[in-house]
Amino acid sequence: MIAEGVAVDVKNFRLLIQYDGKRYNGWQRQGNTDRTIQGKLEQILSRMMGHAVEIHGAGRTDAGVHARAQTASVKLNTEHTAAELMDELNTYLPADIAVTACDEMPERFHARLNAKGKRYCYRLCDGGVPDVFRRNYVCAWPERLDVEAMRAAAELLTGTHDFRAFSSVNRRFRKSTVRTIHELRIVRSGQEICFTLRGTGFLYHMVRILVGTLVEIGAGQRGPETILTALESLDRQQAGITMPPQGLMLEEVYY
Amino acid sequence: MIAEGVAVDVKNFRLLIQYDGKRYNGWQRQGNTDRTIQGKLEQILSRMMGHAVEIHGAGRTDAGVHARAQTASVKLNTEHTAAELMDELNTYLPADIAVTACDEMPERFHARLNAKGKRYCYRLCDGGVPDVFRRNYVCAWPERLDVEAMRAAAELLTGTHDFRAFSSVNRRFRKSTVRTIHELRIVRSGQEICFTLRGTGFLYHMVRILVGTLVEIGAGQRGPETILTALESLDRQQAGITMPPQGLMLEEVYY
Repeated sequence: MIAEGVAVDVKNFRLLIQYDGKRYNGWQRQGNTDRTIQGKLEQILSRMMGHAVEIHGAGRTDAGVHARAQTASVKLNTEHTAAELMDELNTYLPADIAVTACDEMPERFHARLNAKGKRYCYRLCDGGVPDVFRRNYVCAWPERLDVEAMRAAAELLTGTHDFRAFSSVNRRFRKSTVRTIHELRIVRSGQEICFTLRGTGFLYHMVRILVGTLVEIGAGQRGPETILTALESLDRQQAGITMPPQGLMLEEVYY
Repeated sequence: MIAEGVAVDVKNFRLLIQYDGKRYNGWQRQGNTDRTIQGKLEQILSRMMGHAVEIHGAGRTDAGVHARAQTASVKLNTEHTAAELMDELNTYLPADIAVTACDEMPERFHARLNAKGKRYCYRLCDGGVPDVFRRNYVCAWPERLDVEAMRAAAELLTGTHDFRAFSSVNRRFRKSTVRTIHELRIVRSGQEICFTLRGTGFLYHMVRILVGTLVEIGAGQRGPETILTALESLDRQQAGITMPPQGLMLEEVYY
């Protein structure tokens, strides 16, 4: 491990990372380092540096969730420039993970602690035959959904609320479950519907449960107004299903 | 096998088929039926019908080549409507093959014999970090290519020529190797280049060799005018490399 803030030689890099989450147990390192994105990156960086390296991601995407631009920071005692670091990482990374940008940042930059917000997209196909080439990034839904009803419900979700009901956090979770959703946009193009969620931060499973609740509304199983009772209840049982991971993509992290 | 043109009950179906060629040994049935698209379709149709069924594809895509709209025809003695047949096929097909349209056609329609032409696209990425989500459909090329030089060469290829030099047909292949290319368009968007080829028909490996020759021209390894000597030579050695299959997609078949 590198002691933080010690040497003048230590560089602080910000990485933008793109990955297909299908083969992985999510971002966060677990026992078997080969099956997480963080573990894979740390394994390569540690080999490059000759000692253990820790990398900090802005968000812990779940198993099967994708990222177009996950952001991570890592401090390295290296003579590599940012461009050289990116090239070397891409040489060793598997084809389903890529570093798309790398910059040297001021010493105090931290990908998770400095993140101001995130944007996620959830994509689903609600009619016809799902596109074979997008099958790993779009969730197939068997019924046609009512986008107008979902939009009415989305309006009720926008803003600052206690989203405890819309998360899988433990009942005894003591930290604040208040979050702000700046934007919840629903756009249909052909047989594909894209839900864009932009906010200060999202609780465990929150995006997938929000979309699951909207989908139940779009399918006519519940009315848009049930959003309000679910929010007030703080009870997971009042919200909808957790959508499967493959439709979810971390699109951007804001600083 | 169904004897052709016998019963009033025999219906002739046209199928549009989309597939990700990565896991397959191409369209054409071989020994192990599970590893070809034709084999997979015939296996399911034969089980549905209770006897061997033969399906005819418009083009024999190679191992690893994709199709957005391969066209096939099949005669079946069935009470199924076209919509029912499509649903049933999609129920049993793996996630990387889908029937996107199905219509009943006049008795004489044959997907291969009646095809008037085909459109293929070859996609490559010649700069930056290739997009992780398109990695199976776009070929990564290490050098930046000169699109203008490739367009000059593409103009020389358009029209009716003997394309023997641009194919992997056996030297003793006796059939005509004259084909007409109606359009050879090269469009860059960002770091991706798309080659669109529309013509009456294409010889074995012809699209991949045409693109390989253009790529050598775009990389400055040969001049656009070498297209003329290659065409005249009828000699495979005078043309360029055969591009890898994953960038190639059969986009449409014309009737």
